[in-house]
Amino acid sequence: MAIDNPNRVDERVRRSKQAVMAATFGLLTEAGLGGVSVDEVSRRSGVAKTTIYRHWPTRAALLLDACSQLTARPEAPDTGSVAGDLAALAESIADRLTGRWSSVLPSVIDAAERDPELAALHARLHDEMMAAFHEVVGRAQAKGELPKDVAASDLIGAIMGPLFYRRWFSREPLTREAARTIADRALRGL
Amino acid sequence: MAIDNPNRVDERVRRSKQAVMAATFGLLTEAGLGGVSVDEVSRRSGVAKTTIYRHWPTRAALLLDACSQLTARPEAPDTGSVAGDLAALAESIADRLTGRWSSVLPSVIDAAERDPELAALHARLHDEMMAAFHEVVGRAQAKGELPKDVAASDLIGAIMGPLFYRRWFSREPLTREAARTIADRALRGL
Repeated sequence: MAIDNPNRVDERVRRSKQAVMAATFGLLTEAGLGGVSVDEVSRRSGVAKTTIYRHWPTRAALLLDACSQLTARPEAPDTGSVAGDLAALAESIADRLTGRWSSVLPSVIDAAERDPELAALHARLHDEMMAAFHEVVGRAQAKGELPKDVAASDLIGAIMGPLFYRRWFSREPLTREAARTIADRALRGL
Repeated sequence: MAIDNPNRVDERVRRSKQAVMAATFGLLTEAGLGGVSVDEVSRRSGVAKTTIYRHWPTRAALLLDACSQLTARPEAPDTGSVAGDLAALAESIADRLTGRWSSVLPSVIDAAERDPELAALHARLHDEMMAAFHEVVGRAQAKGELPKDVAASDLIGAIMGPLFYRRWFSREPLTREAARTIADRALRGL
């Protein structure tokens, strides 16, 4: 038996990982988290289950990887004022909430209600999404633009909450103007 | 063959409908909307599928009935001020969000992303939940307590959104005090 060229092995590994990710994205978008089983990912991607488990030891690890790639972490803007920064972040979240990720997220939240491993995944993805908000609020508090006794999570909830509400409840359009208004009102309400 | 006494038939119908509802509630709470199939409801309740379909012609009809019973429509409070009314409504929603319904709702939202019939169910349940808010806002606008150009749905989103955010994202406690603060800030932010 010929010994494989290591470069060719790397290339083969890269391709099968890519095929697994593509199949996982497809299933996530079509059916939500509940639609992703390692069996089905293997069937769609043509990659053997043993190979999938070599790269992702559990279904949760595969889901975490796929979900992290669907939700690139937003950068903290630096517009010169906390009002501008929060408006920019609200706009960027509104954009994300019209994309592919937003139709997957309810299935993550649903699974998190019942499965502690997926609850941890949800918390981790959410913390990553919120890091930029915490940076902006922390900077504004350090500069004295925001009172130190304002809980960052209250302000974040006052912006994220109405955006989520529009996306999943009232289903009104998530325009950038609506996002800016939400951020302004959250700041004014403090 | 003896002809059944009509009262006894009614009683038998009542009992089998009750058994079907109890099985549906159980499945909804354990597994969310995705866990409710007419097959499984039949198995758990011991009621034949044909009988279930006689009372609820579709799975969606059964789900709508069960979900409506889980989410009693809130009454519009009348405390004498819009601030008091909104705080009372926010408290009542916070109470609901710590109950059984709140662990089912994400599965409804998830299903609504993909299934138009369940999207209609979600919209209908949501409208019922929000009717009291619309009544309070409409009354305050009629009395001149709130400007007429405030969109009720923006104010509702500024209260409901942060409550939902706490329940499903930050997972901070949904205390009545937190609910009142959210309502106050939403009103002040306008």
